[in-house]
Amino acid sequence: MSVNLRIPGPTPCPDDVLQAMSRQMINHRGPEFKEMLERITGSLQRLFETKNDVLTLTSAGTGAIESAVVNVLSPADRVLCVSIGVFGDRFADIAKTYGADVQKLSFDQGTAADPEQVAAALRADASFKAVTVTHNETSTGVTNDLGAIAKAIRGVRPDILILVDAISSLGSVPLPIDAWDLDVVFTGSQKGWMVPPGMSMVAVSSRAWSATESAKIPRYYFDYKKAKSYLEKGETPWTPAVSVYFAMDVALKKLEAEGLRAIHERHARLGQFTRDGVKALGLKLLADERVASNTVTAVVVPDGVEGPALNKMMRTEYNTVLAGGQGSLTGKIFRIGHLGLVTQEDLQACLDALKLALPRVGFSPSGVAAHA
Amino acid sequence: MSVNLRIPGPTPCPDDVLQAMSRQMINHRGPEFKEMLERITGSLQRLFETKNDVLTLTSAGTGAIESAVVNVLSPADRVLCVSIGVFGDRFADIAKTYGADVQKLSFDQGTAADPEQVAAALRADASFKAVTVTHNETSTGVTNDLGAIAKAIRGVRPDILILVDAISSLGSVPLPIDAWDLDVVFTGSQKGWMVPPGMSMVAVSSRAWSATESAKIPRYYFDYKKAKSYLEKGETPWTPAVSVYFAMDVALKKLEAEGLRAIHERHARLGQFTRDGVKALGLKLLADERVASNTVTAVVVPDGVEGPALNKMMRTEYNTVLAGGQGSLTGKIFRIGHLGLVTQEDLQACLDALKLALPRVGFSPSGVAAHA
Repeated sequence: MSVNLRIPGPTPCPDDVLQAMSRQMINHRGPEFKEMLERITGSLQRLFETKNDVLTLTSAGTGAIESAVVNVLSPADRVLCVSIGVFGDRFADIAKTYGADVQKLSFDQGTAADPEQVAAALRADASFKAVTVTHNETSTGVTNDLGAIAKAIRGVRPDILILVDAISSLGSVPLPIDAWDLDVVFTGSQKGWMVPPGMSMVAVSSRAWSATESAKIPRYYFDYKKAKSYLEKGETPWTPAVSVYFAMDVALKKLEAEGLRAIHERHARLGQFTRDGVKALGLKLLADERVASNTVTAVVVPDGVEGPALNKMMRTEYNTVLAGGQGSLTGKIFRIGHLGLVTQEDLQACLDALKLALPRVGFSPSGVAAHA
Repeated sequence: MSVNLRIPGPTPCPDDVLQAMSRQMINHRGPEFKEMLERITGSLQRLFETKNDVLTLTSAGTGAIESAVVNVLSPADRVLCVSIGVFGDRFADIAKTYGADVQKLSFDQGTAADPEQVAAALRADASFKAVTVTHNETSTGVTNDLGAIAKAIRGVRPDILILVDAISSLGSVPLPIDAWDLDVVFTGSQKGWMVPPGMSMVAVSSRAWSATESAKIPRYYFDYKKAKSYLEKGETPWTPAVSVYFAMDVALKKLEAEGLRAIHERHARLGQFTRDGVKALGLKLLADERVASNTVTAVVVPDGVEGPALNKMMRTEYNTVLAGGQGSLTGKIFRIGHLGLVTQEDLQACLDALKLALPRVGFSPSGVAAHA
């Protein structure tokens, strides 16, 4: 029995994607890589619903967050960082690290950002250069209403930069980059893309390109301009994670064959299935259901249960790998990933295992500890 | 017939290493990854001949260069950058980009750095905080006498930081990090390690760790302190390129079984074989033979021949992929990689193909163009 890997990335990969990972190396400055990179770039543009440049970087998602900050900002630039969890906080931390003058607008864990409060913050201070926002907050299982947030922002500041961490949303839930007029939007290969980690992908608008011209934070490895100039000759400036490109090439063909709408519907259906199943077990969702994520579900660890003990039992006795809580939610929630290659059967198996494991670690549906 | 990939990285990978690349994903914050990361780290320490911390980063080699700069330096720090080619220049460019006060000490392409001139530069100015040096200059096929350079540096400045780009040397040619008292030394998975690109590996001395405490260049993705604190719990701070770790785990077992001395002897023997073969064809080496690299050989494109035309013919008609020249050497040299998984037969096949291809693109051993 194979492991039921139910973390929100790295996600399980299809067999043919894994097979592509084992291809022998090629010259990353030769014609075969060039053709592949052009194919990948075009496919990403279609799946991102954008005509903007799409760049690929060899890094984790956090490298992509850093890239957004260092390419379009200067030290002391005022930045409004909207945060609903660990990854919103990280975007703010990175902006601060590189010298931006950050104002954080935080919302309670499990809730989404209020577009009107974002607009109000921008009306209160006309000096903001950029807004950062996390589309899907992996740490709490909440999806912000990014379309409404973007509309609210543009209503106040038509030309402000909107930088979006879409690491665990893009390609899995609707995010029409051009329709929503977003400037820097990035994701990572190990999420809904069904590809091993190692590549991040960034869409850069013409407004963002203009900003790079005056942006003074130093940058080299993550320099978008270098990436674009090499992309124009079918290369990356630095040696890419070639195998991950092979895998992405295969995965994108599958995703395009399925079609973006079908992919979104699949994630919506499995998200709902997971939430319904979790509630049927007598468990509570961390997220307000109206904003609950269709890629990851955060579940409150019930009274009488130790979160780490539950995750350990699920792993060692039920072959099911869950994610724990992060930051201040450590031990207070567990998370079920349902993005990328996942079926209703995988999620049913996870729910069945939870039903068996929970009483063994002290859970009774009434909320009273079984062996207190 | 499989392609004879004779570029200096990505290098061909053994079958079992490629097979490991196709393993299904695991939790990068679980016990299996922890055990693997600990095994990889210990093995790298042995092969690096160091007791220093060894960190792994998900990046190309250029990311590792950047990491060395941003972790131990502050803006305006005086840095002596020893350069014998493109990659020595890149180290200097990155240091400048992040605000260091760089003094470059360049040597002619094809020659090695003179340890005495390095020492003289340090004697002339006591304010240097660090020296950067490329061990093996991939762009010219020259290996610096790093042991002698380090000794010369320490003779003048026992406590200066020595930052070494060993991307295409470490693990292939002798580089005893502790015996030579080097502070930050890094390499990349796609070189002699016989693993696909995506991971860089950095050894950090206690002197370098002290420097990180006062180093003021901002850093986040490449922060060594974060990497170390996560390594202590068997993780990486950001999602790692898991598949490349699987592959590295397999490759390191093979390399340790072969033994470091045997690996070095193998590279020395194949380097000599390549140089002898190239000269026997009537071609000239770019490098002074006393300092020629045992991982890559740079060959002067003979009169009457167009470098790109030769490489194209080798690729399309002889199934052999060579590297071209970089920077100011574009079109003036071609390069043959002989690091990692390469046999004398592979190199003989490359030489045989060159013998056939060269006359077809205008070469006659006398140096007179055949169809001028």
